[in-house]
Amino acid sequence: MKVGIINVTGYAGMELARILYRHPEVEITSVTGRSAAGQKLGDFLPHLSALDLTIVPEEDLGDVGVAFSALPQVASMETCAPLVRQGVRVVDISADFRLKNPEEYQQWYKAAHTATDLLQEAVYGLTEIYREPMRTCRLVANPGCYPTSALLALAPAVKEGIITADIIADAKSGGSGAGRGLGLMYHYSEANENVQAYGLDGHRHLPEITQELRAIAPGFQPRLTFLTHLIPMTRGILTTCYAPFVDDRFQRSKNPKAELLELYREFYRDEPFVRVVSTPPQTKHTLGNNDCVILPHLDLRTNRLMVVSVLDNLVKGAAGQAVQNMNVMCGYPETLGLESLAVYP
Amino acid sequence: MKVGIINVTGYAGMELARILYRHPEVEITSVTGRSAAGQKLGDFLPHLSALDLTIVPEEDLGDVGVAFSALPQVASMETCAPLVRQGVRVVDISADFRLKNPEEYQQWYKAAHTATDLLQEAVYGLTEIYREPMRTCRLVANPGCYPTSALLALAPAVKEGIITADIIADAKSGGSGAGRGLGLMYHYSEANENVQAYGLDGHRHLPEITQELRAIAPGFQPRLTFLTHLIPMTRGILTTCYAPFVDDRFQRSKNPKAELLELYREFYRDEPFVRVVSTPPQTKHTLGNNDCVILPHLDLRTNRLMVVSVLDNLVKGAAGQAVQNMNVMCGYPETLGLESLAVYP
Amino acid sequence: MKVGIINVTGYAGMELARILYRHPEVEITSVTGRSAAGQKLGDFLPHLSALDLTIVPEEDLGDVGVAFSALPQVASMETCAPLVRQGVRVVDISADFRLKNPEEYQQWYKAAHTATDLLQEAVYGLTEIYREPMRTCRLVANPGCYPTSALLALAPAVKEGIITADIIADAKSGGSGAGRGLGLMYHYSEANENVQAYGLDGHRHLPEITQELRAIAPGFQPRLTFLTHLIPMTRGILTTCYAPFVDDRFQRSKNPKAELLELYREFYRDEPFVRVVSTPPQTKHTLGNNDCVILPHLDLRTNRLMVVSVLDNLVKGAAGQAVQNMNVMCGYPETLGLESLAVYP
Amino acid sequence: MKVGIINVTGYAGMELARILYRHPEVEITSVTGRSAAGQKLGDFLPHLSALDLTIVPEEDLGDVGVAFSALPQVASMETCAPLVRQGVRVVDISADFRLKNPEEYQQWYKAAHTATDLLQEAVYGLTEIYREPMRTCRLVANPGCYPTSALLALAPAVKEGIITADIIADAKSGGSGAGRGLGLMYHYSEANENVQAYGLDGHRHLPEITQELRAIAPGFQPRLTFLTHLIPMTRGILTTCYAPFVDDRFQRSKNPKAELLELYREFYRDEPFVRVVSTPPQTKHTLGNNDCVILPHLDLRTNRLMVVSVLDNLVKGAAGQAVQNMNVMCGYPETLGLESLAVYP
Repeated sequence: MKVGIINVTGYAGMELARILYRHPEVEITSVTGRSAAGQKLGDFLPHLSALDLTIVPEEDLGDVGVAFSALPQVASMETCAPLVRQGVRVVDISADFRLKNPEEYQQWYKAAHTATDLLQEAVYGLTEIYREPMRTCRLVANPGCYPTSALLALAPAVKEGIITADIIADAKSGGSGAGRGLGLMYHYSEANENVQAYGLDGHRHLPEITQELRAIAPGFQPRLTFLTHLIPMTRGILTTCYAPFVDDRFQRSKNPKAELLELYREFYRDEPFVRVVSTPPQTKHTLGNNDCVILPHLDLRTNRLMVVSVLDNLVKGAAGQAVQNMNVMCGYPETLGLESLAVYP
Repeated sequence: MKVGIINVTGYAGMELARILYRHPEVEITSVTGRSAAGQKLGDFLPHLSALDLTIVPEEDLGDVGVAFSALPQVASMETCAPLVRQGVRVVDISADFRLKNPEEYQQWYKAAHTATDLLQEAVYGLTEIYREPMRTCRLVANPGCYPTSALLALAPAVKEGIITADIIADAKSGGSGAGRGLGLMYHYSEANENVQAYGLDGHRHLPEITQELRAIAPGFQPRLTFLTHLIPMTRGILTTCYAPFVDDRFQRSKNPKAELLELYREFYRDEPFVRVVSTPPQTKHTLGNNDCVILPHLDLRTNRLMVVSVLDNLVKGAAGQAVQNMNVMCGYPETLGLESLAVYP
Repeated sequence: MKVGIINVTGYAGMELARILYRHPEVEITSVTGRSAAGQKLGDFLPHLSALDLTIVPEEDLGDVGVAFSALPQVASMETCAPLVRQGVRVVDISADFRLKNPEEYQQWYKAAHTATDLLQEAVYGLTEIYREPMRTCRLVANPGCYPTSALLALAPAVKEGIITADIIADAKSGGSGAGRGLGLMYHYSEANENVQAYGLDGHRHLPEITQELRAIAPGFQPRLTFLTHLIPMTRGILTTCYAPFVDDRFQRSKNPKAELLELYREFYRDEPFVRVVSTPPQTKHTLGNNDCVILPHLDLRTNRLMVVSVLDNLVKGAAGQAVQNMNVMCGYPETLGLESLAVYP
Repeated sequence: MKVGIINVTGYAGMELARILYRHPEVEITSVTGRSAAGQKLGDFLPHLSALDLTIVPEEDLGDVGVAFSALPQVASMETCAPLVRQGVRVVDISADFRLKNPEEYQQWYKAAHTATDLLQEAVYGLTEIYREPMRTCRLVANPGCYPTSALLALAPAVKEGIITADIIADAKSGGSGAGRGLGLMYHYSEANENVQAYGLDGHRHLPEITQELRAIAPGFQPRLTFLTHLIPMTRGILTTCYAPFVDDRFQRSKNPKAELLELYREFYRDEPFVRVVSTPPQTKHTLGNNDCVILPHLDLRTNRLMVVSVLDNLVKGAAGQAVQNMNVMCGYPETLGLESLAVYP
C-alpha cells in the first residue's frame, strides 16, 4: 500500500518515516514539506537518505491509500479534510480532530474549527480504547503524547470505579515533544541541566484527557489538575497520577498490591503495547518503541492510588501509535512494523 | 574561626569546602575522610587543590569552633554526639537529628538512635522557620534536600490555613542528591536520557516533612503523598505540591493570583534566600547558590493550590543551608559567604 | 537458525538481543549470564521482556548454529574456543581474537593467550575489508568500536596511498562503550556536563588499529597517536583523523574537495553500511543503526587530510557489525535484520 | 569603582554580572541591552534579580571607570572605540581588537575594521602572556575561548622550542560558547546525545591562535590544523593538542614525563589561574571558575607531544579572564573577585 507523510520535516514526521521504512505492507511514496519542498529528503535529513525521495509540496502528495499528517494544528485540518472527502484514509497526528466539541477547540486552540462535519466521525486514536470503531473509520485523530500517557495510566482505575474524580497528573517530558521549532526554552544551554514546570494556566492536552476520561466511565466528572514539566532529555514522558480511592477496599485487602496489579493486568490482558509492571518503569525501557509501561501503586497511609506510566512521546505518543492505528484501519496485524525492542541504554 | 569538614569526600562535604573557601570569617583547618585519609586533598579532589590540606581521619579533626558533618546517617550521630558534648558547635547534614521521635527514626532508618539526649535540643535547620532557637543552640540538624524544597513551598499555605491536609508533593531531582557512591541507577548510561520514579513504598524524607508541617501549624495532620523522581541532571530539585484550598476564598477573589502571591511574599518578606516569583522558576536559576525560588499558583477549575519550588540540592538543600545555619549559630550576618548569584546557564 | 547470546546482561549482549529479535532468519534460543543465571530475562532486563527466555549459565548454551560472545576478554576466549572446536560458528565481540600476535595480546591485555591455534584462522570482522575470507570462516573477531571508526575513516586514504604514516586519531565516545560495570568515571554526576581524555599512556585499541592499517597497505608503517575522550552522552563515537598528504596532489587540484570525496565514495561504492558525505556527520545520524558515516575533508593551508567518522558504538561498533558478520558467514543477505534508520532525534 | 556591562543579556554579559557581583572593589552601575532595554534586569534574567538594575540602551551607559563589552563583533568596536577615546578603560570580549592585521580581520569577519587606530594599542588579553603591557593600557582585546585554551596549552612548548610547527589542535566545546542566539544546531533535541565537528573550512579563532603563537616565539611559523567539535554539555572546553618534538630529547630522557611536566610547571610557576597537572583534567574541574588546567603528555612511540587543557569557556574563556584583565589594568590584585573553587559535581 502506498502511504504519504505530510510534513516529514518535523519530529513526528521523520519518526513516521523511520517506522514505516520497516513496515512490510506499505511503501512510502511521498513526503511533503513546505520550506524544504524540492530538496532530496536525504539532503535535508541525512539520517533518512536511505529513502530515495524528494520532498514535495502538499498538493503533490499523489495517490496514496493512507496519509499521515504531522502538520501543526489548524494547518492540519485544512489539509486533512479534503483528503478524507476524496477517500484517502487519514491519521492526523495534530490536535485538530481530538476534541469533539468545536467550541472547546476554539477555546483552547484560538481558531475556529473548519471541518466540523468530520469531527464526529473522527475516531480518537487511543487504540486500546477505540479499536473497534477504528476498524471501519476513515479519519483517526491520533492522541496527544501526554493524553496517551495519562489515559492509559488512569483508564483501568476509572473504568473500574476505584478512584474519585480528584485526580492530579504530574507529567515530565523530554524536549522533542515540543518539536523542531526553535525557542529559548529549548535552546540547549537553557534546557540542559535544568527542569521547569510550564503551562501552569492550563495545557492544551487537559481538555483532551478530561473528554476521554468521561468517555471511559459515563457520568465520571474528573476534577483534574494536569501539570507538565520539561526535563533535560530528548525523548520520553513519565506521568505520575494521583487519586484517592473511593473506599477502603485496598486498606481492607490482605494483599492490596497484588489486587491492584491484577486489576490493571486484567484490563490490559491482550494488549500488545501496554505492559503492566510491578517495579518502577523507566522511560528508557520504551526508547524508540511503541510500548507504554505502567506501574499501579498504592499509598496505604493516605489511601491513594499512584500510577506511573512511561512511553516514548514520538512513538506511542505520536508516530508509533499512528502506525498502530493505520494497521487497525487497514486490517493488518496491529503490531506489524512495530515489533521493535527498546533502544537500551 | 576554625572549622572542620567531616567527610569532605562526599558531594555535600566537597560543596562545604567550596562555599567555606570564600567565607570571610572562617578558616577550614581540617577535612576528614576514611578511605582517603592521608592523601592530599588536591590529589584526591583536584578541584580543591587550592585548599592546601591533607585528609585526616575523624579522630584528628582537631580544635575547631564549628564542625560540619557530611557523614552518612548512623555514622554521623556517632561522630557528632561526642563533639557536641565537648563543646563544639555542630551542623549535622545527615538525617540523624531530624526526627524528634527515636522510634520513628528506628522505623525509617533501621537503626537505634544512640544519642537520644541530643535529639530534643537539636534544632531543625530550616533557617526560615527556626532562626530564633538556632541562635543559641549547639547542634543543628540540617534538613534534607527534598524536605527543604517541600517545606518552603508549603509553609505559607499551611501556616495561613488555606489548604486542607490532602497534599501531594511530586519531586524531581538530579543525581547528585544520591551522593558519590556507585549504583546501577546512577550509572551514566542508565541515568542519562531517562526518568524514573523511586522510593514508591515511602521515602525517608516523608516523615521529616510531615513532622515539620505539623510543627508549622499545630493541629494540622497532613495526609501527604510524597514521590521522588530521578531526572537526568546533576544538581537541582524541583518540587511540585498540590493541595485543595479549604474554601472558595480564591474562587471568590477578584484577583486570586495576586492575592495568593501576596500571601507568599508576605510570609517570606525578609528572607534573603527565598524568592517568591510569578513566572515558572527553573532549577538553573539556583545552580550553585543558596536560593529557593517559589511559584505559588492556583488551579481555579479545581480549586487547588499548586506550588513549584526549586533549589540546588547541594546548596540550599545541604551545604549552603548548613553555612547559613552556622552563620546564625555564630552570630555572623546570615548571608555571609553565600552572596553568590546562580551559575547560569 | 538457532543462535545464542553469551553474556546477554552487558550492553553489547542486550543490543544483540534487540537486533536479533527482528532478524527474520534467526531465533534466539538461549541467553547466558553469570550472576543473573536462573532469572527470567524480562525480570532482569525489563526492556527485553518480549523475549520469553530464562538466563542460563554458559554451559547450558545448548544447540545453536551461531554463538555470539559478549563476554569480557580472557573469559571470552575460554568460552569461545571449545565452541568453535565443536563446530559452532562464533562471533566474538571481545578483543580476544583480534590481535594476530599473541605476544602483543599479552602485552596489552596482561594475560597469556590460551587459544593461539585459533588466532590465525579467526577473521577480523571489519566486514568491508574482510568480507571474502569471512564467508567460509568459523570464528569472527568482531572489531573494537574505536578501531571500526578509525579504520573505516582511514582505509581509503591508506589504501590509495595519499597520506603519510603520521596519523593522529582523536576519538570522542559516549559512556556505553565502557559497559555496564560501575566506576566513578561513569557515575552520572561525574560524567554529566564533563569531558576528559583517558588512556593517555596507550589505549588497548591502538595495536588493533595499527595492525589493520598495515594489512590494508602492506609496507605502511603507521606512526599513530590515538587518544580517546569520554563525552557526556550514552551512545556514539566520533573519530577525527588527521594526516599529512604525501604530496601536493590536492593543492594542485582544481577541485580538491570533489576529488577527495570521489576517492572515498569509490572506495565504499557498494557498501550498504558506509555512507560518505560532504557535510559534517553527527553521531545522532547513526543512533541505533548499523551505519558508519564518513566525511573526508582537507586543510589546504597545511596540506593535511582530516576525516570525521561517526557510528553507534553498540551497533556498527559492536552488536550490529556482529550480526552483519553473521549474515556474511551464514550466507544471508548482508543487511538482513539491520535495515533500520537512525532513531532521530 | 563603577563598571558597566554592555550587552548583559548574552551569556558572557550575564557571567560578567555574576562574577563582578562578588568583586569587592567594583560596583555594577549600568547594564545595557538592546531589545530588553527598559526592563528590570531581574524580570528579564531572574537569576540576576539580586542586582537591582534596569537594562538601559548603550548610550545610557553613564559614567563608569571600566566598561566590559559583550557585544557581537563589529557592533562591539563601534561601541568600544568612542568609549576608549573618552577615557573609559575597556575590556572587549568580542573579536574586534584581537587580530592586529585589519586585512586579516576583514578576511575572517567579512567586515571592514572601523577603528584601526586602536588596533595596535589594544593589548591581547591573555593575561599570562601580556600582563605587563596590560598594566598601562586602556583597551584589552579579551581572547576567544578556544584560543585561550589552545594557547595556554601550547605556549610553554612553543616558547621553549621543543615542538615543530606541525600542530593539530582538536577542541571539544559545550554549547554555551555559541551564545544565547537560537539555531537548529543548538536546539536541545538536536544537540543532546550528539557530537559533531563544525567549522571544517576554518574557524575564526584559527588566525588568532596563529598570530599569538608567532608572537610567543618570533620566527615560529605554525602550520596549525584547528578543528572544533560541539559536545552535549553547557559549559567547558577541552582542547587536545598534538605536535612532533623537534628532536629526541624526551626519548633519550631517563624520566621524560617528569622532565616535560617540570618544563610546563616552570613556565606557569607563579600563575594563579593555570594549573599544570599529571593526571587527566576534566572540564568539571573548572566549572564556574577562572582556572585553566593543563596536562602535558608525551607519546614516546611516535615522539609527539600531547597536551590536554580544560577551562570554562564563559569564565577563563570570557568573563573571568575579562575581570582578571580589569584587575591588572586597574592595579587590583589579579585574583580579586575570582577566588572561587569549581562547582563540582
